[in-house]
Amino acid sequence: MAACGAAPDGVTQDAASPEWVPIPAENLLLIDTEKGPVTVELNPAFAPEHAARMRALSASGTMDGQRFYRVIESFVAQGGLKDEAAIEDWATLENENDRPYGGERFVPLGNEDLFAPEVGHIDGFPVGRNADLEQEWLLHCPGAMAMARDTDPDSGSTEFYIVLDAQRYLDRNLTIFGRVIDGMEHVQALKRGERAIENGVIQPPEKGDLIERFRVASDLPEDERPAWEKMDTRSDAFEAFKTSLRVRDNEFFYRKPPEVLDICSFTAPVRPAGSD
Amino acid sequence: MAACGAAPDGVTQDAASPEWVPIPAENLLLIDTEKGPVTVELNPAFAPEHAARMRALSASGTMDGQRFYRVIESFVAQGGLKDEAAIEDWATLENENDRPYGGERFVPLGNEDLFAPEVGHIDGFPVGRNADLEQEWLLHCPGAMAMARDTDPDSGSTEFYIVLDAQRYLDRNLTIFGRVIDGMEHVQALKRGERAIENGVIQPPEKGDLIERFRVASDLPEDERPAWEKMDTRSDAFEAFKTSLRVRDNEFFYRKPPEVLDICSFTAPVRPAGSD
Repeated sequence: MAACGAAPDGVTQDAASPEWVPIPAENLLLIDTEKGPVTVELNPAFAPEHAARMRALSASGTMDGQRFYRVIESFVAQGGLKDEAAIEDWATLENENDRPYGGERFVPLGNEDLFAPEVGHIDGFPVGRNADLEQEWLLHCPGAMAMARDTDPDSGSTEFYIVLDAQRYLDRNLTIFGRVIDGMEHVQALKRGERAIENGVIQPPEKGDLIERFRVASDLPEDERPAWEKMDTRSDAFEAFKTSLRVRDNEFFYRKPPEVLDICSFTAPVRPAGSD
Repeated sequence: MAACGAAPDGVTQDAASPEWVPIPAENLLLIDTEKGPVTVELNPAFAPEHAARMRALSASGTMDGQRFYRVIESFVAQGGLKDEAAIEDWATLENENDRPYGGERFVPLGNEDLFAPEVGHIDGFPVGRNADLEQEWLLHCPGAMAMARDTDPDSGSTEFYIVLDAQRYLDRNLTIFGRVIDGMEHVQALKRGERAIENGVIQPPEKGDLIERFRVASDLPEDERPAWEKMDTRSDAFEAFKTSLRVRDNEFFYRKPPEVLDICSFTAPVRPAGSD
């Protein structure tokens, strides 16, 4: 029963901007690259150990001065420690490739998908689900940040990648733990390697673009922390946003496009806090 | 009946590399940008007047020194003359947004699509088709090159855009006349504008990256022309290529991805001539 202005899910509906929710500083990963700053929202709800690893890497300063050493056009930008001995200082992580149905925060996209039985959003992240498996997982859409690994699904530890064009065939095989919410143009500007040479590792790897600083916002002094908020993907505002993409009713479209969305063709809105 | 080494479609099967076909020099558009060279294959079979316009722009030298002045992350990179008076020197073009069923060179992708009743390839280009409309059209996949326009579908003339992430809702509403076959990483590195400011036009537009030279290869001295060839999308080699993307049977994939392809998730292979 909804009472006292509280909706059944406990979120009050009478706040000034109920559709915008702050992103906690400990979930904001700031990667300063040689090409410009990149902001990532970590997702500890889907990948708690991987989010914790990013925070540990931030606190240690280990990533500062490392590089994006394997960047393949249209595929992914991979960075990290590169050096085997340095990587081995960090324990491998059990994969968090999917999780049991979370349920109530899932908002369906509203149309079919080529790869998953059902797709939609949970808290701003694109998600796939399979009712038979009773599992849900984050999707390899552009801007997804995930952990690279060897053949063993539990062999990832420090080497991460950011998805350039969507790579949905990787879904459920690797652990996505974040999404780029700002600065994707700087990821797209990173120096590329050649896929046919050393599997895309830049030659020599030292020519790859620098990771100048790799820091979770909560590790910064309070007055230096950026603040971001994201649209609540359970809100009417988000439904209206999707409709604006799905239904193109201005006269530019003399032929009406099919009223369908690809889950990877848009990102759930974010904005700097206080920009309302 | 196949006889004398000729297949029913008239293509002989006993050549050295029957699956690779040269791209004519008059279809190779070379755009030297401030961020690096970009090579485009023009498609006069789908968009003859638009391909002819690109050749006229090449011959005139008008594009040299112009800029990519409207570049929106994840959307498109638009370039051209920008100045209204300069644009008006060139007649507007009737749109070539689609064409009647061409038929026999179409090779189906082999699975469903979210946006079109049928998708596949014609001569290396991704294509959508609709049997009821008896029409086929080129797709707004990454790397597609198309003509910008005003509200009137026949108002395009000189201002072009290159698709960054797929924009399928634009299909059949604007004329695609080419595809980037090399240098997409340089398109991705182009300086961006802010979508919310002047509809993405870089402020001031003179800060956009230069088009240093815009030239069709056939306008260059013969010994300066690059030579490219493309995989025949009707060949067994292309079927094998698609299967290699669709069926991931190496042990890295401990969970088999669905055996499906998004038409915009890959490009039909090209290579420098003679690289066999």
